[in-house]
Amino acid sequence: MLFFDKLEASQMRAGGLVCVGLDPDPSRLPETVRRAGNPQLAFNLALVESLSAAACCFKLQSAYYEAQGLDGLKALQETIRAIPKEIPVILDAKRNDIGSSAEQYAKAAFETWGADALTVNPYMGADSLAPFLAYEEKGVYILCLTSNPGAADFQIPGDLALRVAESATRWNGARNIGLVVGATQAERMAGVRAAAPDLPFLVPGVGAQGGSAADVARTGRMAPGAAWAPGFVVNASRSIMHASSGADFAEAALRETIRLRDEINAALEGR
Amino acid sequence: MLFFDKLEASQMRAGGLVCVGLDPDPSRLPETVRRAGNPQLAFNLALVESLSAAACCFKLQSAYYEAQGLDGLKALQETIRAIPKEIPVILDAKRNDIGSSAEQYAKAAFETWGADALTVNPYMGADSLAPFLAYEEKGVYILCLTSNPGAADFQIPGDLALRVAESATRWNGARNIGLVVGATQAERMAGVRAAAPDLPFLVPGVGAQGGSAADVARTGRMAPGAAWAPGFVVNASRSIMHASSGADFAEAALRETIRLRDEINAALEGR
Repeated sequence: MLFFDKLEASQMRAGGLVCVGLDPDPSRLPETVRRAGNPQLAFNLALVESLSAAACCFKLQSAYYEAQGLDGLKALQETIRAIPKEIPVILDAKRNDIGSSAEQYAKAAFETWGADALTVNPYMGADSLAPFLAYEEKGVYILCLTSNPGAADFQIPGDLALRVAESATRWNGARNIGLVVGATQAERMAGVRAAAPDLPFLVPGVGAQGGSAADVARTGRMAPGAAWAPGFVVNASRSIMHASSGADFAEAALRETIRLRDEINAALEGR
Repeated sequence: MLFFDKLEASQMRAGGLVCVGLDPDPSRLPETVRRAGNPQLAFNLALVESLSAAACCFKLQSAYYEAQGLDGLKALQETIRAIPKEIPVILDAKRNDIGSSAEQYAKAAFETWGADALTVNPYMGADSLAPFLAYEEKGVYILCLTSNPGAADFQIPGDLALRVAESATRWNGARNIGLVVGATQAERMAGVRAAAPDLPFLVPGVGAQGGSAADVARTGRMAPGAAWAPGFVVNASRSIMHASSGADFAEAALRETIRLRDEINAALEGR
């Protein structure tokens, strides 16, 4: 099954567009999981079990696992294995390299760790992305317009982000490309949507980073001409993971996931 | 000791500018190491022992290790530990992300794995690079102009690569920034050298990718006004690693390293 078909099916099941980021910082984990043999894994397994009914996908930020070395990568691998098969997993690793190395990164993400989709960086151009896109059943989210202040350094001058969006549309023969478009850029998101009406968006930056879920859902989900864009997901990480720092963290995370899901749905329905 | 000071001292010791890439593809390893418990590690340890007198640094391409999962990352970690302390290690991982995740990537590269320098991607701008640059004793090589055809997609239009070079010069307060400039772009390399006269270059693409070591050494090492640019290194990976596919691979790799080192030195001396 193609990644974006799997994602749409999972969105129907979960009743919404919320992707939950699993980015466990050991210094911020609840006391109850710090005593586990692998605290990152214990934290993730509790969240996966609690959130699977309301999250349409999970996104694992590779950096948090790599920083913990072999134990961290074991937590990454075991978490992906534990996520129910009908829920897609995005590995957020922003990988990029020339062809032979990109092949190895694609193998790592899609075969070794078992992710359904991967985030990649477009700086090195078409041939650096081809090895990822060759996995036609997997999803490839290309960084386009990011949610941080530094987006203004290179992405906005010369309309680089818009050129990335247009190129991505051309490269989408297998219909497995999406774009990463930051939630803190709702006005500019409309420009990206116009440049790439048919591409799914992965929208980080809601919650802790300050983006408005309602704004981005309205701007990014609706393609010009009022058709729904496919595969749109809104990611929240810290606001869900750390909704409570107590033993009830998994239940609090579920409440926050449902609150965000319903806020987005209300915005989309014009309520 | 600052990374680029360590690198210069190592270049004096090794008598040249050759960085050897350790990018072990399991399907291309000599029979003699395939029987080892961890073939990537056995291959690397033999190369490190053979090449330490002639290589000024080693560069590990993270993708090849990640593709092998936990065993691969163990090989990465053990290889870095086995490299003599006076020889700098560059982790070629082309990492990039927003601040909080970038902090974790910097921790992974510099603390968890123990690299002396890291390659990073500039697409996300200044604040995405700051957590790497905060490690003032470590080296940060920013992708500028890469050696693959896709460099023409985004790096060349609008002079993006030159703007990255100029920005990198401004961000270099701790004098720990270098640029990645591909060897297949000798003519354009002169433009980058003019935009960033004081920045060290890491030059991949010599050998298997077809760049001329002599051309790039002349173009990239000499700053305008005929001063030597600091910290210039030329990387070769496949042409050294696979100089022989037999049991003599480590000796053949040494001969090729010395040959390339001497070719570059001759070009620099105008011989």
